[in-house]
Amino acid sequence: MAGGYMGKILKVNLSEGSIKELPIDEEIARKYLGGKGYAVRLLYDYLTEYERLGIAPEDIDPLGEENVLIFATGPATGVIGFPEPGRYHVMTLRSPLTGGIGSANSGGRFGPYMKFAGYDMIIVEGKSEEPVYLEVIDGSAEIKCAKDLWGKNTFDTTRILTKRAGGNCSVACIGPAGENLVHIACIINEEHRAAGRTGVGAVMGSKKLKAIVVKGSERPEIAKPDEFKAASKEMLDKIKQNPVTGEGLPKYGTAVLVNVINNAGALPYKNWQEAYNEKADEISGETLEAKYLRKRVACWGCSIGCGRATEVKTGPFKVLNTEGPEYESIWALGNDTAVINLEAVIKANHFCDELGIDTISMGSTIACAMELYEKGYIKDEDLQGLDLSFGSDAAMVEAVWRTAYKTGIGKYLALGSKRLAEIFGAPELSMSVKGLEMPAYDPRGIKGIGLNYATANRGGCHVTGYTVSPEIVGLPEKIDPLTYEGKAAWVKAFQDFTCVVNSAVNCLFTTFALGAEDYAVLLSHITGWDLNADEIMKIGERIYNLERVILNKYGFDGKDDTLPKRLLTEPLKEGPAKGQVVELDRMKEEYYQLRGWENGVPTKEKLKELDIP
Amino acid sequence: MAGGYMGKILKVNLSEGSIKELPIDEEIARKYLGGKGYAVRLLYDYLTEYERLGIAPEDIDPLGEENVLIFATGPATGVIGFPEPGRYHVMTLRSPLTGGIGSANSGGRFGPYMKFAGYDMIIVEGKSEEPVYLEVIDGSAEIKCAKDLWGKNTFDTTRILTKRAGGNCSVACIGPAGENLVHIACIINEEHRAAGRTGVGAVMGSKKLKAIVVKGSERPEIAKPDEFKAASKEMLDKIKQNPVTGEGLPKYGTAVLVNVINNAGALPYKNWQEAYNEKADEISGETLEAKYLRKRVACWGCSIGCGRATEVKTGPFKVLNTEGPEYESIWALGNDTAVINLEAVIKANHFCDELGIDTISMGSTIACAMELYEKGYIKDEDLQGLDLSFGSDAAMVEAVWRTAYKTGIGKYLALGSKRLAEIFGAPELSMSVKGLEMPAYDPRGIKGIGLNYATANRGGCHVTGYTVSPEIVGLPEKIDPLTYEGKAAWVKAFQDFTCVVNSAVNCLFTTFALGAEDYAVLLSHITGWDLNADEIMKIGERIYNLERVILNKYGFDGKDDTLPKRLLTEPLKEGPAKGQVVELDRMKEEYYQLRGWENGVPTKEKLKELDIP
Repeated sequence: MAGGYMGKILKVNLSEGSIKELPIDEEIARKYLGGKGYAVRLLYDYLTEYERLGIAPEDIDPLGEENVLIFATGPATGVIGFPEPGRYHVMTLRSPLTGGIGSANSGGRFGPYMKFAGYDMIIVEGKSEEPVYLEVIDGSAEIKCAKDLWGKNTFDTTRILTKRAGGNCSVACIGPAGENLVHIACIINEEHRAAGRTGVGAVMGSKKLKAIVVKGSERPEIAKPDEFKAASKEMLDKIKQNPVTGEGLPKYGTAVLVNVINNAGALPYKNWQEAYNEKADEISGETLEAKYLRKRVACWGCSIGCGRATEVKTGPFKVLNTEGPEYESIWALGNDTAVINLEAVIKANHFCDELGIDTISMGSTIACAMELYEKGYIKDEDLQGLDLSFGSDAAMVEAVWRTAYKTGIGKYLALGSKRLAEIFGAPELSMSVKGLEMPAYDPRGIKGIGLNYATANRGGCHVTGYTVSPEIVGLPEKIDPLTYEGKAAWVKAFQDFTCVVNSAVNCLFTTFALGAEDYAVLLSHITGWDLNADEIMKIGERIYNLERVILNKYGFDGKDDTLPKRLLTEPLKEGPAKGQVVELDRMKEEYYQLRGWENGVPTKEKLKELDIP
Repeated sequence: MAGGYMGKILKVNLSEGSIKELPIDEEIARKYLGGKGYAVRLLYDYLTEYERLGIAPEDIDPLGEENVLIFATGPATGVIGFPEPGRYHVMTLRSPLTGGIGSANSGGRFGPYMKFAGYDMIIVEGKSEEPVYLEVIDGSAEIKCAKDLWGKNTFDTTRILTKRAGGNCSVACIGPAGENLVHIACIINEEHRAAGRTGVGAVMGSKKLKAIVVKGSERPEIAKPDEFKAASKEMLDKIKQNPVTGEGLPKYGTAVLVNVINNAGALPYKNWQEAYNEKADEISGETLEAKYLRKRVACWGCSIGCGRATEVKTGPFKVLNTEGPEYESIWALGNDTAVINLEAVIKANHFCDELGIDTISMGSTIACAMELYEKGYIKDEDLQGLDLSFGSDAAMVEAVWRTAYKTGIGKYLALGSKRLAEIFGAPELSMSVKGLEMPAYDPRGIKGIGLNYATANRGGCHVTGYTVSPEIVGLPEKIDPLTYEGKAAWVKAFQDFTCVVNSAVNCLFTTFALGAEDYAVLLSHITGWDLNADEIMKIGERIYNLERVILNKYGFDGKDDTLPKRLLTEPLKEGPAKGQVVELDRMKEEYYQLRGWENGVPTKEKLKELDIP
């Protein structure tokens, strides 16, 4: 087996109660790396097998026995010296939120610890009758009863299972939201790290899988340790010298972006009715640092340390000894809902972590509900005493636990903004793409990210192709956010390269400082393969295209590669991007051409070129 | 059949899915009236039958199939012209909170509507596999599927079932707390009326019975309509002319008592560490009236109208279009927790109604947790970011939904204060008697109520024998609250008379204006029996003693007729009752003598005298 891998996949079938080991297939690994890429390939194989059995892709129930849940690491995960190697990727055959592929990514230490327990991946098939958890310790796995854990929040679950395993382990679990099949439920590890998006927590809940505990002392081997050590030093120096990874992120965390994006006129406000908020500094990373920071925290093996340990010491939103919120969470729970109250946002973020809900989709869905309420689609009698006007800080916080427990208006919020807006009769008010709520960058002020949202395989997602880096941050070079020229190429490059990062699996923030060549060097030394930048990018493109092939099977195509009408037709009324909309078609045609796609579908030639079956 | 009765009992067995009708037994009715009295007699018969089958009383699981749940009305219920006839009584063979009898009482319109549907009582036996509800319309009953209602709060449940039944009905239901078997869960009707105490909601939840819907057009007959009409007019005049029922309660609601009781130095503060609070007026009925009242509301057929429709218009505890809180709720959620913030109390009260939790036990259990926290028994790591210091308004509100969903510290609060304090190692900090949290009168300042708490069959309860009426309010005559002399007789008389009221079944508030003779007149005209005041009081005594016989079978005796150590040994440090403790034994011996009890157990002679089997 190539270096960086443990060489083994754990396959658990909860319907049968069976546990198997599979070898990592080196041929697949060479073509899809690991992590997300390898998982996409496995999902494709599941889909093919289902089709052979007569089960059409669109008939797969995201919350049914037939869905598959994969926890994946890659060759970089858990390798000391690989820049920021503390992450893992989660994939599901279908997402309950979008109907597309489920895909989410988290930090902390679960990824590395899963490898140390002996496995590169864990595949969960089927569905248990009774609540269970999976304990994987030093190459030995067991399905255990979790009846006593069902109903418990993520904090309690983590502490109880950590104690039971004798400490020094990692626990990835769902909270009440996942158990209750909330479509925006996430998976939480280390109490505050979330595999957040596309409702992967609900898939775990539908399988009655409360948690996975991983612990072990194995370590991945490095094919060329001396070469790797030298390269590692060089890369970590680049990380340290980079203004974002060496200074901005460590000092202010991801929330450093609040003022930056607002100053670009691209911080969505009031469910994207505007994108500039003159009070944004009140909820900025600088304010978080000044008023609420306890200390900085880092994922396993990370040299950046963007995590924030925080607390609110007094008042109605008092919460002690918590973590976060990240930039996206501040935006969604705060700016998008017009709750310009960092204390309320910290509290709501705490509830999201405790109960297991994705902060982006949660905040964005609440913002959507607020607009539905202010415009008269949601009535007072639907709210049972709750005032969901924009800016209602306490109502925003309350909406979080209501969602987890599907109580009152929470039962609709639990479906995500797309279905919420449909149910209340104004589908155009859901600020989502392919059913996934978009994050904190208004493409009317940052055109490239708009093309990325429209074409991202998992839906409205920033970390599929983060063109904010060149368009706003100026890395690897500064480009104008308001122009359309050249954006298609940037989007494609970022999308493909991000597939590499999520398949390596390490932290996307490294890409502020490192490029494909750097990755090629590092991954070559670890695996022992001879990879160059072109090949690395080809791997990324292959992954992206195979994922798209799966999406096509579910019925997604060019018509779904679009943006909410508001972004295409309502010019911004204030701020630096005043007057702007997104002229999506100007970029999309060029993008399809670069991709070798027709109407959102890869051509046969492209698939052949990429050696996709 | 005697007047005032419909003459029929509905008996539902949820294990079998069977529904039967039984006739009201006139001999039992003559001896136990109806309502609580009749139900106690039925419970006694169940217990006897269980003993015959070899099931010992102490082996009956309060949340098991063998528990029995009874909804009971009496001859007064639903009779227009009977003062305040809008109530019903709930009894269970055992309470999950106390291990004694479960007993609770509620207003609104459920009681009358149950009669109009054709039944004086509904007995629920057994336990359903799947969630169900019972629909009783015009003499016809059906067990229906409630899968779609399980998880819904009481507001949604009420509205959905009301709509389904075509309106003009009443719904008594449980919320998530009852479903989750929270030991302090209640049953809610009309969204804000609660059969609150002893965890009857958990018993209903254990049977998977989500709700009972009642609707109908039958009316109870009056044996002597002309005589009744004349007597009714006279009694309603007495109600109107009485300072409490004619003025205090209509104008300020039950919360009129906040200042009254605080001024007597008997308003328990900080989990009964003190009983005088100089800021009490901030949470008084007068403040409620001035700042938060929308309008006054009344139960079915009530001439007093003590209910409050309220709302909080701004701030973190904003809640629109709600009802309450009552005096006891303000005290428990506010004064006892040192949350001198009426807005937080209104919000917490709203959550209690929505989720189905008894406000007295909830507030008192939170206050107990606060003292446990401040004294170091509960640690920060048990609280997951929550600050449970006395006076933490937001934490108090949050603790309510945490209890309903058993999340975080909520899973311990859900057990009530007695088990909470035991688990955390300081049982003396639970301010409960026989496991039931005491309400809002500190007996160090009102001695008689102390004897009542100690000897009340259902545990720490004020409405078993409300001697506050003579001791503080001065009705029917003013006596000194701080003396011990004569209190035993007052307690016995109030306990017996209250059994009559709860068996009649109408509102206890009538007893501020009406006595046993008045009840004898009214009940005679309705039923056609010839009752006098002595016989009325004998019926009450019989009911009280039979209830006690059942308690004895569960192992309760004189040792349990006591008060928390704090009340016996810690003198009050401030206010009009400064320096006082309760010298319980001075009253208890006399009480036992008057009762004809030995060590809390009725003598054979007493039972024979009362014609108890």
